[in-house]
Amino acid sequence: MSNRLLDGTLTEENIDQNVLLKGWVQKRRDLGGLIFIDLRDKSGLVQVVFNPDFSQEALETAEKIRSEYVVEINGQVVGREESTYNPAMKTGKIEVIANEITILNKSKTPPFAIQDETDVAEDLRLKYRYIDLRRSALQETFKLRHQTTQAIRNFLNDDGFLEMETPILTKSTPEGARDYLVPSRVHPGEFYALPQSPQLFKQLIMMSGFEKYYQIARCFRDEDLRADRQPEFTQVDIETSFMTSDEIMEMTERMMQKVVKEVKDIDIELPLVRMPYQEAMDRFGSDKPDTRFGLELVHVSDVVAASTFKVFQSAIDNGGKVALLNVKGEAGNFSRKDIDKLTDFVKVYGAKGLAWLKLEDNELKGPIAKFLTEEEKEGIVKKAEAKDGDLLLFVADKNSIVYDSLGALRLKLGKDLDLIDESKFNFLWVTDWPLLEYDEEQGRFFAAHHPFTSPVEEDYDKLDSDPASVRANAYDLVLNGYELGGGSIRIYQKEMQNKMFKVLGFTQEEAEEQFGFLLEALEYGAPPHGGVALGLDRIIMLLAGRSNLRDTILFPKTASASDLLTAAPSAVSNAQLNELGIRLDSKDQ
Amino acid sequence: MSNRLLDGTLTEENIDQNVLLKGWVQKRRDLGGLIFIDLRDKSGLVQVVFNPDFSQEALETAEKIRSEYVVEINGQVVGREESTYNPAMKTGKIEVIANEITILNKSKTPPFAIQDETDVAEDLRLKYRYIDLRRSALQETFKLRHQTTQAIRNFLNDDGFLEMETPILTKSTPEGARDYLVPSRVHPGEFYALPQSPQLFKQLIMMSGFEKYYQIARCFRDEDLRADRQPEFTQVDIETSFMTSDEIMEMTERMMQKVVKEVKDIDIELPLVRMPYQEAMDRFGSDKPDTRFGLELVHVSDVVAASTFKVFQSAIDNGGKVALLNVKGEAGNFSRKDIDKLTDFVKVYGAKGLAWLKLEDNELKGPIAKFLTEEEKEGIVKKAEAKDGDLLLFVADKNSIVYDSLGALRLKLGKDLDLIDESKFNFLWVTDWPLLEYDEEQGRFFAAHHPFTSPVEEDYDKLDSDPASVRANAYDLVLNGYELGGGSIRIYQKEMQNKMFKVLGFTQEEAEEQFGFLLEALEYGAPPHGGVALGLDRIIMLLAGRSNLRDTILFPKTASASDLLTAAPSAVSNAQLNELGIRLDSKDQ
Repeated sequence: MSNRLLDGTLTEENIDQNVLLKGWVQKRRDLGGLIFIDLRDKSGLVQVVFNPDFSQEALETAEKIRSEYVVEINGQVVGREESTYNPAMKTGKIEVIANEITILNKSKTPPFAIQDETDVAEDLRLKYRYIDLRRSALQETFKLRHQTTQAIRNFLNDDGFLEMETPILTKSTPEGARDYLVPSRVHPGEFYALPQSPQLFKQLIMMSGFEKYYQIARCFRDEDLRADRQPEFTQVDIETSFMTSDEIMEMTERMMQKVVKEVKDIDIELPLVRMPYQEAMDRFGSDKPDTRFGLELVHVSDVVAASTFKVFQSAIDNGGKVALLNVKGEAGNFSRKDIDKLTDFVKVYGAKGLAWLKLEDNELKGPIAKFLTEEEKEGIVKKAEAKDGDLLLFVADKNSIVYDSLGALRLKLGKDLDLIDESKFNFLWVTDWPLLEYDEEQGRFFAAHHPFTSPVEEDYDKLDSDPASVRANAYDLVLNGYELGGGSIRIYQKEMQNKMFKVLGFTQEEAEEQFGFLLEALEYGAPPHGGVALGLDRIIMLLAGRSNLRDTILFPKTASASDLLTAAPSAVSNAQLNELGIRLDSKDQ
Repeated sequence: MSNRLLDGTLTEENIDQNVLLKGWVQKRRDLGGLIFIDLRDKSGLVQVVFNPDFSQEALETAEKIRSEYVVEINGQVVGREESTYNPAMKTGKIEVIANEITILNKSKTPPFAIQDETDVAEDLRLKYRYIDLRRSALQETFKLRHQTTQAIRNFLNDDGFLEMETPILTKSTPEGARDYLVPSRVHPGEFYALPQSPQLFKQLIMMSGFEKYYQIARCFRDEDLRADRQPEFTQVDIETSFMTSDEIMEMTERMMQKVVKEVKDIDIELPLVRMPYQEAMDRFGSDKPDTRFGLELVHVSDVVAASTFKVFQSAIDNGGKVALLNVKGEAGNFSRKDIDKLTDFVKVYGAKGLAWLKLEDNELKGPIAKFLTEEEKEGIVKKAEAKDGDLLLFVADKNSIVYDSLGALRLKLGKDLDLIDESKFNFLWVTDWPLLEYDEEQGRFFAAHHPFTSPVEEDYDKLDSDPASVRANAYDLVLNGYELGGGSIRIYQKEMQNKMFKVLGFTQEEAEEQFGFLLEALEYGAPPHGGVALGLDRIIMLLAGRSNLRDTILFPKTASASDLLTAAPSAVSNAQLNELGIRLDSKDQ
């Protein structure tokens, strides 16, 4: 091995040492007959000085170098004079006097500067991803991703889990997102699917007697992408036999505690809060509540149940509700125009409007005040714990619209009014999810999670009589308003799995056709089992304090699922298609 | 957490403890009014006794249980009488007296018995993979796979490598094996390809400044399968910047040393032998020599250069060679019929025949003896270091046929004659590979490894003048006659990469079309870099002492790339195909 030291880790302890450095030229400055370069490697930066008193030849070579040249430098570490200390650099108290320099590779002028803060268009950064990734912010993100992954593995290894690999070329199944398909050459007309998750394989691993499985698993969904979705993503996939949901949640939160401690040196207090789904909706208007701040929903349907105000009245009459946010002390800061903007905001979520009242001089004022009785006003003030100077914002509508619009408005106001303590890591579990969701259009139930989720035992009976009220033995892990993932106890008895397929509208034949192997496996000693799956990319995003999921994925795809660097997807040859027995369905064929 | 103890780890130290056990019924025996079951979990087996004196109810439940039922048992650990110790079981000195038993799930009679040695057809075992995996031999293999993976990771983590994930949905490129393709819904008519390896991405990671990357990476090749190939396989993928090939080999062998020590407790001596490709061919007739035994090729072309024996003469005249194996002391054990069988064997490898001589009573005897002069015979005996009783087997042909046939014959005889010490782990590096291979049919050179492999520096000049003689800066790691993988220093300068594409017959346009992003990346400060990739499945196969690659993959595919468990690949709906803009190319459309 060479005597190379990592450039960015040199300190005063290396003074007088001869070092061999290899790296990239971050910056070159010519000053008073000397040349200074900041040399960059994966560990950071160090200043190298070319001085004709030491080597005229090195100086002459240094005159040719430009930003992003790759160079090898032999030199000596020296202390800087105190007046030239650079506190912005870890290596700011030393520099390296170059004796020799070799240019290993040249560089054209990069299409954008390699600096921490950038306003370069993302498309350009993705096309030149290998340049963008040289920025220290991204270097740090992928170090953190590495550390996080290892912390997760170490925890699970110590806990007796085996890391196991499940197939990427799998069977296409309905009842989920859209599959990516892979045509088979050996079996023309047939296709593999890329897995949306290793769900069925991890259940089969339990049926294989392994008891404790995990995998940092690549998953695929061919869905239209949002800012926080990617066609391929990574999940921490865990399954266990014989554990209860309580035990799985307890194990998972110990894992996350360890990760946050190792990576961020922050202590998470356990046990985590467990909040039933309905409570999360009622208090925060969200099934993934950001609990770093208050501004909770206040429900006033009972107070205004007899109101003559038509907006309230009709919402309640139609089975909906009336709720409000009490924006403390902000009455004076929101003009009518400001509130109009908030009204536009909630309309996106289906609300027809945003009623408001201000408590000023101990009196509720605002356009709707005149429709409310004194008793109703008193009731509202009491429920909302309103004080002078508070602004009350009402939505009256179908329940789902009240939750969605006030939940979103709460988050917006939380950010706008700076109510959120960004240093907090507020984890919580959301539990007691509904097992099924009724789809009005298709006139049938769908699995809220997936069709292998077990109902809670007390609700078994209601699967026939009242499916909509059956709760799932499922749990989601939420952090700062983001769903990190979730899990459930799975169905492990054939009769229950058959019943579940029936409730979902499968004929026995369809169930056998799609999931026959699972139903059969359940007949050969399937153990009780359950697990959890957490989105690694999102965990990294939150731990790194970033807001763009693409910054956490080494080579991400755009919103149209393109890789701008390699130009994928791309056309392929007819010979390739012929071998696969497929044709393009274009108009001119 | 429950007070559950792992069944197979109970020892005499647990005597008198009350335990809660969960697992599978391996076997039930009724004896003298008692019922005995062997209860199995992931840690092994323990005997449970149902005795009416302790619990009549438990006994009655136990009467209903069958093999592979999943049960939960409350009981007490007791020592066995010494006369009933079972030395075949780790828990053989104790048993558990059951107080309670709950049947968690039933099982039909499994399609085959769950036992270590099995002669059940592999197709049936693959269809019921979740039952086959319950066998302890497979349980142990996947524990070993887990341990091996973690040992590799720990080594690389400690050495400053970052684990990084490269895309699975990538761009299709020519110049390799056949790609698996994935049609794009968003870009109709375009396709992603599943990666044959992360080769270009790991090079881009080096250009991104990360310097030390690894990944336990899934790779895909749509090739016709042999026993030791799978459509998806896993490789330990490593890339580094600024390291020489010597340094990469040194690092890799330290990694393998650590793995073998941790997993098998066997010491591998370093440095490993490095054998040039040509030496491997000359001595072992193979570029992946099994060096656990001798029986090396003996080259006698010079001795018989002037021979009048037509077979020798024409081989040499046509640029080929004459070589032999000296099968020590076996002259008396091989009849003419036995040798005829060996002749049939080498014919598979293209040899026209197998000449032979036996050294008996200090005289070379056999059908070809009469064609050889005394001087030639003496020369052969001397070169082969033949002693009385030795059998000499000759192939005279084109060089490649001599190597292939004698290399294969050597392996066959090594096995048949029990010359191989199966306890040995003989690693070695094969180096100095040819960079290019000429394809007579297509009339052009192909990259022997891949088009990104760097020539050795001394041979740069010969790329134009004598491409066939250019050596690659590449190295393969071989273990016991299997290629575990290999690597190379990559081309990192645009001019050299362009020259390489030209030698391979690409027009500049074709090179830009397929690899434009790489050529462009080489212009922006690409560091010198190289790496290695090792087949994890094959490493596991050899460490586990198995001969079937499918035994090392959790859910493997058959030779026709089918998953017999889930029945993949399968037909998909027309709606799915329509969304992707493709049609099946069947005759009736």
